[in-house]
Amino acid sequence: MENQCVFCKIIAAEIPSATIYEDEDFKVIMDIAPAAKGHAIILPKKHFANLYEMDDDTASKALIVARKVAIAIKAELGCEGMNLLQNNGELAGQTVFHFHMHLIPRKQEDGVTFTWKQGSYEEGEAAKVAEAIAKKIK
Amino acid sequence: MENQCVFCKIIAAEIPSATIYEDEDFKVIMDIAPAAKGHAIILPKKHFANLYEMDDDTASKALIVARKVAIAIKAELGCEGMNLLQNNGELAGQTVFHFHMHLIPRKQEDGVTFTWKQGSYEEGEAAKVAEAIAKKIK
Repeated sequence: MENQCVFCKIIAAEIPSATIYEDEDFKVIMDIAPAAKGHAIILPKKHFANLYEMDDDTASKALIVARKVAIAIKAELGCEGMNLLQNNGELAGQTVFHFHMHLIPRKQEDGVTFTWKQGSYEEGEAAKVAEAIAKKIK
Repeated sequence: MENQCVFCKIIAAEIPSATIYEDEDFKVIMDIAPAAKGHAIILPKKHFANLYEMDDDTASKALIVARKVAIAIKAELGCEGMNLLQNNGELAGQTVFHFHMHLIPRKQEDGVTFTWKQGSYEEGEAAKVAEAIAKKIK
């Protein structure tokens, strides 16, 4: 547990939360400022600031929990769509520096905007960028 | 492999792609209409339409691959932020119905917008919604 981490405090039940799911490794809570009713946050109990720091054991379980909860949200709310979003770094929209994944149920005209300008690569550029990134994989 | 699935064809190398990473279970390619240089798409080789359908084995490996590639993108591009986004359903922005995760490297004023109106719950409402969803978890 990290001092001053609001998610660590929620996990430890020092701060109350509306809990959807809990097991040995994860706690899934309702976002208190939700994009939509049912917007959930998946928290590993271990503190990792972001995806880069996460250990294999936690990474191997996180998406299984996300799927389980996503199916339940869809079953309960009948939402047409669902986004899974995980932000790393303040510039990417991360506000609490304890790894978490958002599950956002979607419906028509819900005020949620996930957009970007679609760019393009010059001939051969994508392959060069891919190769450069590939060289950094450990 | 699903007939007519563009990602199955990319995985089978029937359609070319700029590949960052490949193993027995996954292929990671460059998005050809990227939000930003280095925008990657993580594809399980098995065809699942979405998160709901994914099997445990694939789910247990996907985030480990995502982390590996995210670290490499960050190392190569020095980006300040990174979003992991996975869309389920057309309404949520899914355009290819083969499960995939976007890794989007972020920088200042990059034209990427992930926003929503922050809602709120009435007193006790979040707990009730959480309980209703929890009952649907299998």
